Amino acid sequence: MTFTEKLLRCSRQNDSLLCIGLDTDVERIPRFLLREKDPVGTFNRAIIEATRDLVCAYKPNAAFYEALGEEGWRALAASRRMVPDPIPVIADAKRGDIGNTARQYARAFFEQMGFDAITINPYMGFDAVVPFLEYPDRCALVLCLTSNPSAGQIQGLSADGRPVFAHVARRVVEWSRQGLCGLVAGATRAADLSLIRQIAPRLPILIPGVGAQGGDLARAVANGVDSSGELAIINVSRAVLYASGERDFAEQARQKAMDLKEAINRARRSRAEKTRRGDGT
Amino acid sequence: MTFTEKLLRCSRQNDSLLCIGLDTDVERIPRFLLREKDPVGTFNRAIIEATRDLVCAYKPNAAFYEALGEEGWRALAASRRMVPDPIPVIADAKRGDIGNTARQYARAFFEQMGFDAITINPYMGFDAVVPFLEYPDRCALVLCLTSNPSAGQIQGLSADGRPVFAHVARRVVEWSRQGLCGLVAGATRAADLSLIRQIAPRLPILIPGVGAQGGDLARAVANGVDSSGELAIINVSRAVLYASGERDFAEQARQKAMDLKEAINRARRSRAEKTRRGDGT
Repeated sequence: MTFTEKLLRCSRQNDSLLCIGLDTDVERIPRFLLREKDPVGTFNRAIIEATRDLVCAYKPNAAFYEALGEEGWRALAASRRMVPDPIPVIADAKRGDIGNTARQYARAFFEQMGFDAITINPYMGFDAVVPFLEYPDRCALVLCLTSNPSAGQIQGLSADGRPVFAHVARRVVEWSRQGLCGLVAGATRAADLSLIRQIAPRLPILIPGVGAQGGDLARAVANGVDSSGELAIINVSRAVLYASGERDFAEQARQKAMDLKEAINRARRSRAEKTRRGDGT
Repeated sequence: MTFTEKLLRCSRQNDSLLCIGLDTDVERIPRFLLREKDPVGTFNRAIIEATRDLVCAYKPNAAFYEALGEEGWRALAASRRMVPDPIPVIADAKRGDIGNTARQYARAFFEQMGFDAITINPYMGFDAVVPFLEYPDRCALVLCLTSNPSAGQIQGLSADGRPVFAHVARRVVEWSRQGLCGLVAGATRAADLSLIRQIAPRLPILIPGVGAQGGDLARAVANGVDSSGELAIINVSRAVLYASGERDFAEQARQKAMDLKEAINRARRSRAEKTRRGDGT
């Protein structure tokens, strides 16, 4: 089963495009958990158990674990294993290096830790991606347009009449012949997201930037889904994880995830309705 | 003391621009070491002890350690601590993420592990760099032009009459007002390296791609050094580490490092000579 098939299966089963970003920051989790032996693991397990029927994927960001040193690295591997098998787990690691070295990152994230997908930085070109394509059931999600304020400094430069991020999107469509790539495109730039979806009609697109970063959810969904209203992975991290700092944190996270899932599905229905009426998106 | 000051001090002390890349691959170290409890640590310690008077810096690439899981992460931190204090140690990690997350990477590499510098990917713009500038004695070495075959796919796109990598170099000069940034520019593209040195006359430039990757050493030195023949960090990894697969591996690594240091210094003298005669470089 390819990553895309696994994603579609889970997304349809849970009727959800919501991905929860497990960017677990020890300084932001409920204080009472700090008395536990493994606060990060305990927090993640509770969040996963409370939301596993509401998501299409989980996405831990490696940085939050690396900041804890060796123990954090162990928690990252353990958190991946906590997720039930049918749900894809994306390592948000934004790696990118020459072939010889990228192969080591593929081993770390795909073999050692068993992630289904990893985010990759395209600045070094195809060499940085190719070792990840040797795994037929995994996926390289390549950064195209990111959601941060300074994203445009490099990604927005205009080369031969189109922005750098559009060159990246076209390259990734080429690289992905066997369906082993996807893209990352932030919700904060909805019009550009629409251009990226046009360039890559059949690739999964991971869409961060909704929630704490302020991207408009309905526009991100309308512009990010494929022609069937699928293959968009709408990531929310802080707004779900830290919905409450109290003992009810998992319950509140579930409520927030339900609200987001429903808001996403309303936007999908509204888009489908418009498409049927022929208004386009 | 800033990173640049520390680098210059060590480089002058050892009369060397050579940086040894500690890209320690368990599949390539001498077989007899695999019987040790900690083969990677044992290998690194022997290499460091054999070469510490010949280098301006060491540079472990995080990927080789991450591929070993939790144990590898421990070995990375331990290897950093093995290097005597006056020698700068660069984490080749090529990280890059939004501010909130980049801060976690800064904690991991600067606070948790105590690296003097880290390589950073510029694709996300300034946000990915700024958390690393909060440490006045550390340095963010930003990827500009890499040494791999597909580097040109994105870095070589022409925007407003100059390649993307030249835009990056100009941005990094702006960001580095307090001297907290440097650049990474591969030896395999010597003419472009010269352009980058013109854009950034006073920044340290980490230059990989000599050795196994085939870049011309003399041209890389001539085009990479500053006007005083300094501030180029010429990295060699495999050619030194795997100079021998036998019990004499450390001795052979020392011999190779001495040869490289001397070849670099010949190229510096030849360049200085030409500059004195007014031939330029």
